[in-house]
Amino acid sequence: MKKPLILITNDDGVFAPGLRKLIEIARKIGKVVVVAPDTPMSGMSHAITVKTPLRLKKLAEEKDYIEYSCNGTPVDAMKLGEKIVIQGKPDLVLSGINHGSNASVNIVYSGTMAAVLEASIDGIPAIGFSLLDYSHTADFSAVDEFITPVIKSVLEKGLPEGTCLNVNIPAVKKEEIKGIKVCRQAKGRWEEVFDERTDPHNREYFWLTGVFKNGDAAKDTDSWALANNYISIVPVHFDLTAHKAISVLKKWKMDV
Amino acid sequence: MKKPLILITNDDGVFAPGLRKLIEIARKIGKVVVVAPDTPMSGMSHAITVKTPLRLKKLAEEKDYIEYSCNGTPVDAMKLGEKIVIQGKPDLVLSGINHGSNASVNIVYSGTMAAVLEASIDGIPAIGFSLLDYSHTADFSAVDEFITPVIKSVLEKGLPEGTCLNVNIPAVKKEEIKGIKVCRQAKGRWEEVFDERTDPHNREYFWLTGVFKNGDAAKDTDSWALANNYISIVPVHFDLTAHKAISVLKKWKMDV
Repeated sequence: MKKPLILITNDDGVFAPGLRKLIEIARKIGKVVVVAPDTPMSGMSHAITVKTPLRLKKLAEEKDYIEYSCNGTPVDAMKLGEKIVIQGKPDLVLSGINHGSNASVNIVYSGTMAAVLEASIDGIPAIGFSLLDYSHTADFSAVDEFITPVIKSVLEKGLPEGTCLNVNIPAVKKEEIKGIKVCRQAKGRWEEVFDERTDPHNREYFWLTGVFKNGDAAKDTDSWALANNYISIVPVHFDLTAHKAISVLKKWKMDV
Repeated sequence: MKKPLILITNDDGVFAPGLRKLIEIARKIGKVVVVAPDTPMSGMSHAITVKTPLRLKKLAEEKDYIEYSCNGTPVDAMKLGEKIVIQGKPDLVLSGINHGSNASVNIVYSGTMAAVLEASIDGIPAIGFSLLDYSHTADFSAVDEFITPVIKSVLEKGLPEGTCLNVNIPAVKKEEIKGIKVCRQAKGRWEEVFDERTDPHNREYFWLTGVFKNGDAAKDTDSWALANNYISIVPVHFDLTAHKAISVLKKWKMDV
């Protein structure tokens, strides 16, 4: 069988250990092209770079492997990988392994998942992986045996049109992981807390911080799965339409 | 009746004519707080600022009106408005009027709509307005009579839980606008074209450009409504789950 071509990016930047682990896993499965941001891009969501020029820097080239950094966002990196490096569609786009959760509402802020959504907009099967440990020294040693079958399943079966996968892995020992749950995105949100300070010139400034609030007790969610030591897989898409609200709004008389 | 408190932001920046028009309209309806980015932030999507401190600058204060700029993204601006300026929930968040379309897949990249989604995550009714004219000198003179009834309807009726509105207005003369269509987000995408150049130091760089491709011929979409001189209103939400795909994936055997 022909080796699949896998494009990899992330939002923690090209030197993140999570990216290195994903590259290691993917190279056992196929040919790999990496285009990742040259600096950490957490919280960049689906941002694209239109005001400044983009640059690519080749970092490595070996048999069935090529690696670039770029000065853009994760979405820019995915687009550059597809259009400039590969000049065609890869068989699969992978993003991550993110240092920290992209479950529940975190997906909205995530650069890792934005790159995955961007790939699916372009009709390419795509998977984002995240480990629920924010630290640079997060332990990725247990993830291989969970990630490999997910990648192989998607390569073999494809994904429903316009759908990509958001895979989150609890930060527990391998033997404590109970299995995989396919679930929906939990309703949660960040309650912002601005840390207010005064600079040496006596001007006020703010650091954005926050506390995550899970407002969803149901058991069919990613938050529940992760809290109960399951790996969560949420199929996601880029149709933001609240379809159920259409009939409600159609009854309103807003026409002039 | 007590005047509603309306928080306004945008992604074209605090000096954009579209924002000025929206402020003018909103001040006829309620008390208005403006917090808008100090520079244009198009394409910033749902990005948040966590690596640098945020600052607010008061630009104006009058009866029932206060205006700030901030050095953050549209989502930062919305959060600063709620948590620092108002220190509570406004009755309504408005964003725009965006210079250019946020219909179809544009919503994914839009800072204007990200601020609206962020408000709805926080449980605040919110509406984003966009005019299909990218130019700084876009003609906003015809929009009042279409925007005002939408704002008043939402203030009066509220919105279904977790839902906000994406309103796009065709760039045609007032008398050519046929009315309002409540619709779904069209399936479309940008086909990227990287403009490749060489800098004076002989290094390659790229400008991200693209062409929008509407891949959706159905008549219940925002793209159809706008092409036929209707104002489009799409109810949107932040649940990215592809619910129909859950049953498909549950049949897969990905467990180790």
